[in-house]
Amino acid sequence: MAVIVQKFGGTSVGSLERIEHVAQQIIKTKQQGHQVVAVLSAMSGETNRLTDLAVKLDPNPSARELDMLLASGEQVSIALLSIALIKRGYSAVSLLAHQIGMQTDNRFNKARILNVDNQRMLQELQQGHIVIVAGFQGVDSEGNITTLGRGGSDTSAVAIATALQAKECQIFTDVDGVYTTDPRIDENARKLPYVSFEEMLEMASSGAKVLQSRSVEFAGKHKMPLRVLSSFIEGEGTSITFEQQADKKHPVSAITSHKDEALISANGVIHGEKFRSKLLTLLAKVDIEIDMLTQTAEHVNKINFSFTVHRNDYVQAMCIAKSLTTEFSVDELFGNNKVVKVSAIGNGMRSHAGVAAELFECLFANNINVFLVSAAEIKISVLVKEADLIRAVQILHKKFQLNTII
Amino acid sequence: MAVIVQKFGGTSVGSLERIEHVAQQIIKTKQQGHQVVAVLSAMSGETNRLTDLAVKLDPNPSARELDMLLASGEQVSIALLSIALIKRGYSAVSLLAHQIGMQTDNRFNKARILNVDNQRMLQELQQGHIVIVAGFQGVDSEGNITTLGRGGSDTSAVAIATALQAKECQIFTDVDGVYTTDPRIDENARKLPYVSFEEMLEMASSGAKVLQSRSVEFAGKHKMPLRVLSSFIEGEGTSITFEQQADKKHPVSAITSHKDEALISANGVIHGEKFRSKLLTLLAKVDIEIDMLTQTAEHVNKINFSFTVHRNDYVQAMCIAKSLTTEFSVDELFGNNKVVKVSAIGNGMRSHAGVAAELFECLFANNINVFLVSAAEIKISVLVKEADLIRAVQILHKKFQLNTII
Repeated sequence: MAVIVQKFGGTSVGSLERIEHVAQQIIKTKQQGHQVVAVLSAMSGETNRLTDLAVKLDPNPSARELDMLLASGEQVSIALLSIALIKRGYSAVSLLAHQIGMQTDNRFNKARILNVDNQRMLQELQQGHIVIVAGFQGVDSEGNITTLGRGGSDTSAVAIATALQAKECQIFTDVDGVYTTDPRIDENARKLPYVSFEEMLEMASSGAKVLQSRSVEFAGKHKMPLRVLSSFIEGEGTSITFEQQADKKHPVSAITSHKDEALISANGVIHGEKFRSKLLTLLAKVDIEIDMLTQTAEHVNKINFSFTVHRNDYVQAMCIAKSLTTEFSVDELFGNNKVVKVSAIGNGMRSHAGVAAELFECLFANNINVFLVSAAEIKISVLVKEADLIRAVQILHKKFQLNTII
Repeated sequence: MAVIVQKFGGTSVGSLERIEHVAQQIIKTKQQGHQVVAVLSAMSGETNRLTDLAVKLDPNPSARELDMLLASGEQVSIALLSIALIKRGYSAVSLLAHQIGMQTDNRFNKARILNVDNQRMLQELQQGHIVIVAGFQGVDSEGNITTLGRGGSDTSAVAIATALQAKECQIFTDVDGVYTTDPRIDENARKLPYVSFEEMLEMASSGAKVLQSRSVEFAGKHKMPLRVLSSFIEGEGTSITFEQQADKKHPVSAITSHKDEALISANGVIHGEKFRSKLLTLLAKVDIEIDMLTQTAEHVNKINFSFTVHRNDYVQAMCIAKSLTTEFSVDELFGNNKVVKVSAIGNGMRSHAGVAAELFECLFANNINVFLVSAAEIKISVLVKEADLIRAVQILHKKFQLNTII
């Protein structure tokens, strides 16, 4: 009998009615002859409600105590789901992170999983029980409760699936799979029956919100097949696997976009290397992350240096950059916080060198100006004006024949 | 440095404002040079809210899963109190039952404490931390979460105080101490500066709601001094100790009353012994508890047998009694669910034989009819009409000079 791990997010367990629905879903899988372990988030809204209480007491609450507080959310949802399953005649047992030995480091609020002990879960499964585990939480080496950060339940599910050598880790969410692009941006978006781990990772880091990058990374590392499914609509969802799909027709699998970008450009900088390292160090000190980054070759002792930050960090980042302009006699410091990143992602790009050319040509032909470009092995990202976002996604989606993908 | 354990009930931590108030209370004790361990209930209303959710899914929810669910309530209150203390510059650490090794049996919903490991708490106290522990909950030998039943946090506090050899276990509640009688019934009620464990136990089992009997029993057994204090009003409260207070003037320390009584009398029963054992066995089978119980000596082969049950059980108990009337040719089966129990309690009664006589005389002189009497070493209880409740309490309170106690 194969073990299937099913993860249900906050929306999927957001009310008693939805919990009953999840119970039915689990029973269906159980009736198909599988052993089922369900991993749950807190009921939607609960984590925010608890955080609000904490913040009212202290705008910057103790990280350890915040984790103690937040971990109560999953405890409620797992107990309620177990009660619903038992009511339907299925034996179920809910377990907290410490009860399954979900060991993490002690970085409260953003802990990393170190180890999962499969003993208790296997014992319960062998007795025929459905096992319901609290996602998002762990314990450090001293037995303190930790949490994995927002979206951490996905990672919990993958770690548990890996520990149990599950057949598949199914992530139930409010969309029915991974799409060629965001259907709200392009109605021609189509559900992909499968994507590779690498594509999924690039998509997650380029704006696709369906899965948390860390969980995909974790699954890829441990070769645990993932499947994204809807909690509400029947279907096969999207399978995320290692199988390399040689698809000559579709070198690009998906077009993603990420809105919250802001561009900062320093033009005509003397001592480019020093400027760059000093600026990046200062930004890192205040936890500002850089996304895209380009630098022109030195010309007459001067360089142009451009990068993007999250839009929320724009003002602070500009301020820091400005503070260096005199020292490095920067000719011009330019910023734009109305820019977005559009990316084309696909395993097929590896063997299809012409994708970049086609992409630029297509954007140029449609009068879409490109500020920055960054490229990885299976991804090309361009920074464009926010006003061009929808048009850029739609024309690239069509250009790479994703409108007609099966 | 002495350890003081302070227990705060649901009302005391019922809102963020009250949690801040509790933080101040704890800091005051800490500043007096004590090591403080606080034991909390869930925020008032929370246990009911969670129970309602469970009952909507299953009117008779799994006992194990209900405990998993309910234990989340204390997790919230301890984390919030810790956050409030840390905000004020005091290092505090919240701990769940499993983190302090609060071992119980596995009778879910009504577990009994078997052992408390003091190691983690002592370690935290030695590091100067204020320790905030979740009351009401425990873990069984398999690591499952258990709860101790309503009011169990009092017992948690006493068990923790005992494990830490605390100087005192302080129970903060919404009244400022133990009174000679319920002030809502008699405005002359006075706060007792001290009562003995035995008196407190008899009071708890006779209607005084200030402390849960089990916690008093536990404290008495382990010789842990208790103190009942108000969370809202400053004061010394009432100390519950072993010191025998020889008070010749006041053989009675308190008058209590318990409203929810119902009387059942079977008169003229043949084979009294058999009838009694059969009836009590049948009642026990459906979990109906007997409170007072009397039986007349056999006369012409017949006996009269009377007992009281909780008013909620009256109809069912009468029905069971009726089912035996033919077999045992009972002359008359009589019931009254408008009766109440009034009790006089006091260590002084041991050495003062006349209390019973005075009590009956006083009730008789005031035309209060007594249906049943039961007496223990330091308590006499009488069953009277509900309509006589207030008058009976007031005249006995006056009779035994409790109006003028210091």
